[in-house]
Amino acid sequence: MADTIVIFGASGDLTSRKLVPALYRLFAKGRLAAGSKIVGVSRSQFEHEQWRESLRTAAEKFVGKFFTAESWEAFSENIFYHAGDIKDQADFKSLATFLDSIETEEHSGRVYYLSTMPQLYEEAIRQLGKAGLADDSKGYRRVIIEKPFGTDLATAQALNHSIHGVFREDQIYRIDHYLGKETVQNIFALRFANSIFEPIWNRNFVDHVQITVAEEVVIGRRAGYYDTSGILRDMFQNHILQLMMITAMEPPARYDSSLVRDEKVKVLHSVRKMVGSDFANNTIRGQYDGYLKEEGVPPKSQTETYAVLKLYCDNWRWKGVPFFLRSGKGMSCRTTQIVIQFKNVPHILFGEKTRTPVGNRLVIQIQPAEGIQLHFETKVPDSEMKTRTSTMDFSFQQASGTELPDAYQRLLLDAIQGDASLFARSDEVELAWGIIDPIIAAWKSPAAPDLFTYPTGLWGPTEASEWMEEQKREWFDVCPVLN
Amino acid sequence: MADTIVIFGASGDLTSRKLVPALYRLFAKGRLAAGSKIVGVSRSQFEHEQWRESLRTAAEKFVGKFFTAESWEAFSENIFYHAGDIKDQADFKSLATFLDSIETEEHSGRVYYLSTMPQLYEEAIRQLGKAGLADDSKGYRRVIIEKPFGTDLATAQALNHSIHGVFREDQIYRIDHYLGKETVQNIFALRFANSIFEPIWNRNFVDHVQITVAEEVVIGRRAGYYDTSGILRDMFQNHILQLMMITAMEPPARYDSSLVRDEKVKVLHSVRKMVGSDFANNTIRGQYDGYLKEEGVPPKSQTETYAVLKLYCDNWRWKGVPFFLRSGKGMSCRTTQIVIQFKNVPHILFGEKTRTPVGNRLVIQIQPAEGIQLHFETKVPDSEMKTRTSTMDFSFQQASGTELPDAYQRLLLDAIQGDASLFARSDEVELAWGIIDPIIAAWKSPAAPDLFTYPTGLWGPTEASEWMEEQKREWFDVCPVLN
Repeated sequence: MADTIVIFGASGDLTSRKLVPALYRLFAKGRLAAGSKIVGVSRSQFEHEQWRESLRTAAEKFVGKFFTAESWEAFSENIFYHAGDIKDQADFKSLATFLDSIETEEHSGRVYYLSTMPQLYEEAIRQLGKAGLADDSKGYRRVIIEKPFGTDLATAQALNHSIHGVFREDQIYRIDHYLGKETVQNIFALRFANSIFEPIWNRNFVDHVQITVAEEVVIGRRAGYYDTSGILRDMFQNHILQLMMITAMEPPARYDSSLVRDEKVKVLHSVRKMVGSDFANNTIRGQYDGYLKEEGVPPKSQTETYAVLKLYCDNWRWKGVPFFLRSGKGMSCRTTQIVIQFKNVPHILFGEKTRTPVGNRLVIQIQPAEGIQLHFETKVPDSEMKTRTSTMDFSFQQASGTELPDAYQRLLLDAIQGDASLFARSDEVELAWGIIDPIIAAWKSPAAPDLFTYPTGLWGPTEASEWMEEQKREWFDVCPVLN
Repeated sequence: MADTIVIFGASGDLTSRKLVPALYRLFAKGRLAAGSKIVGVSRSQFEHEQWRESLRTAAEKFVGKFFTAESWEAFSENIFYHAGDIKDQADFKSLATFLDSIETEEHSGRVYYLSTMPQLYEEAIRQLGKAGLADDSKGYRRVIIEKPFGTDLATAQALNHSIHGVFREDQIYRIDHYLGKETVQNIFALRFANSIFEPIWNRNFVDHVQITVAEEVVIGRRAGYYDTSGILRDMFQNHILQLMMITAMEPPARYDSSLVRDEKVKVLHSVRKMVGSDFANNTIRGQYDGYLKEEGVPPKSQTETYAVLKLYCDNWRWKGVPFFLRSGKGMSCRTTQIVIQFKNVPHILFGEKTRTPVGNRLVIQIQPAEGIQLHFETKVPDSEMKTRTSTMDFSFQQASGTELPDAYQRLLLDAIQGDASLFARSDEVELAWGIIDPIIAAWKSPAAPDLFTYPTGLWGPTEASEWMEEQKREWFDVCPVLN
């Protein structure tokens, strides 16, 4: 059965930079069903050929060495363009007619990809419903919704409510491209296809977990938008909480979209609610020096470009183990990593001959240096019995001999094939907002902790290091080695 | 306090190849006390200078890039030679006089290194006693005894008995150079300076352990001697059982020679005695094709050049976990390695999408590719949720940037400093013979298992692989990658 992928907001950056390159690669690998169509929709007027040409230029650039003229020709024959305004019912009617006209098989599945401005999601869904485009009697109808999914709990609930008026939950694919990353999916393999990690993956052996999403870049061009959002909405509610869920979840009975998401949701249910002084004690706010001079930022903006949350999962596995979630702009380097910091040995039997060993650490490098490192103690050669911290290293790129596929390939293919494991469910999204909302509110209240200014190019506010030291812990402030 | 190292059997290979190079390196690193003397004793007649010259030639060769003429000059000033026959009481008297004459300090410690033919150990000890050379009122007196320590339990007991007539147990250093290897000592660090391995280092998580000492070389020149010994005496009673003890032992309260050896001995006490059909079922004997043609080997020799023992430690930690001990000549490559094969995951949640993952494996490379590898499952990139076995790797040489010090440096220094942790105690040696003796006896009895002939250059008899397959297990027949 051929599939049709309809991209709304097709003239946007995401389409040419990510979606069409990903679909092209899937096509070249033979993963798309023969005759599958791609239809771009936006307000601009394009001829099919004109649209194909503009995509070709972008694809050459973003696909890089995998691009060949020959396969592009074959691929682009099935690319179409249909001008239309989300707000115009007639445009949806004509889109429906157009889709019917190009779909040569009687039963064709369709994925609607909403890559428009977020304010248009509800309207787009409503129009799809009205035009009969959600009717799946002649093939599946699924909708992929880009982030952000709401700006707080109330708007997320409202959006879910609207969508559920048109699509069933099993037709809805809320995308978080982090989940499509090979290194994130590999956490499932690491935890559940290996026997040696799971026995020590709990409060008896783990001291704490650090999840860091550091960006070297500052905000620049997007500052006006960013200032209304802030880092908790931009990074924590989605990516970082997703990483935390996958790190902390119990093993499901099967790797199945419903069972996997049930377990993820259980993690969010277990997150201890912050109350009273928790907001001051367990969060850190930072803003990089220079942010106020970015174009479009109000002169006294209190928007965070750096944040730390110390969360606890109140359940049998994790009780008492802090999860330090951290993200910042203008950091020392770009890196997303999860550090499982194990407790120290209960007893040091080498006596005065040696220093206290550093606890073991499993470092899961999500990007850009995709890999895993185990930090462990080895004997210092030519010493009596001194030890030092050494590294066992695994690199995905070295093991694969090639670059890892982009997250959008996995996610588009999963949506086409109806596997929602790597997409967020409605309860997941709402629970995540339920964790973030009270912190955003507290940060806007008189009880908000100080907003620390920090210089760019380092690891955020020095206060964050002191705070960690007070807890007798240390940030893993290490830039990954890129091979 | 200066030390004197007296080497008996000084004209032998070990002195020039290992002992003097090791002492020279210790000197160059400033680890020997100023004025420490080295005295060679053997029947040949040498002038001091002549003896120094011959050692220098050997040292240049075996020390390699660390050799410098200048430090050799300083070192060799304190090398002496004293001709003497182990059997001649007068020679020991004159040795005593000579040692007193060169020891400038009132109190000087002495290490007597017995590197003679094993048949002379008892006589040498007796003579040392008679000549008053064991009297430690003016400084410590210690004796290092090279392997083999006896040829069975009875001879080992007799040797212990003789030695104890002259030296206290705390003066006796039975050497097994395997224990001086950095990678063997590192097993202590790996197990007891890390918190993540010990919790899974037991019957709940380990399926079995493989300890392999493989040699690519065949026997050649030493065949006449070897034929009377065989691989159980040559490799198992000492090196392989040592590796097993360190792998299986409980953590001692302190890293202290007495406490460490108490724990090692407990492992030997726990080894299940083979009875009846065990000898046929749990052992494999092999002889490489061509052994019978080696010079000095009797035409119908039944001597083993390959053996496998499947042993069990009947204790709370290891009950039911087989230890597969294996050694062979004429194997695929030279490698000594310990494989901790973990059990498989209890449940595979990725369903039909994936193969059954291979259990995790920790591979401890003792030599020549000193390092540690962890074999674990990772997701196959660009697949749904298939996994494959990947490797996390640690190399001692890469981490140190230089070659590891030779075992004899550690062991000589420890003996000089009075640390016997890395030497075998009397009970240890006797218990080890107590394990090996019944197997040697059974192999000479009518109930002996077949002696399989195997081609050189592979991994021993094919029957050994079939035997392992019957147990649903697999030999880790992998030659290490040398960096």
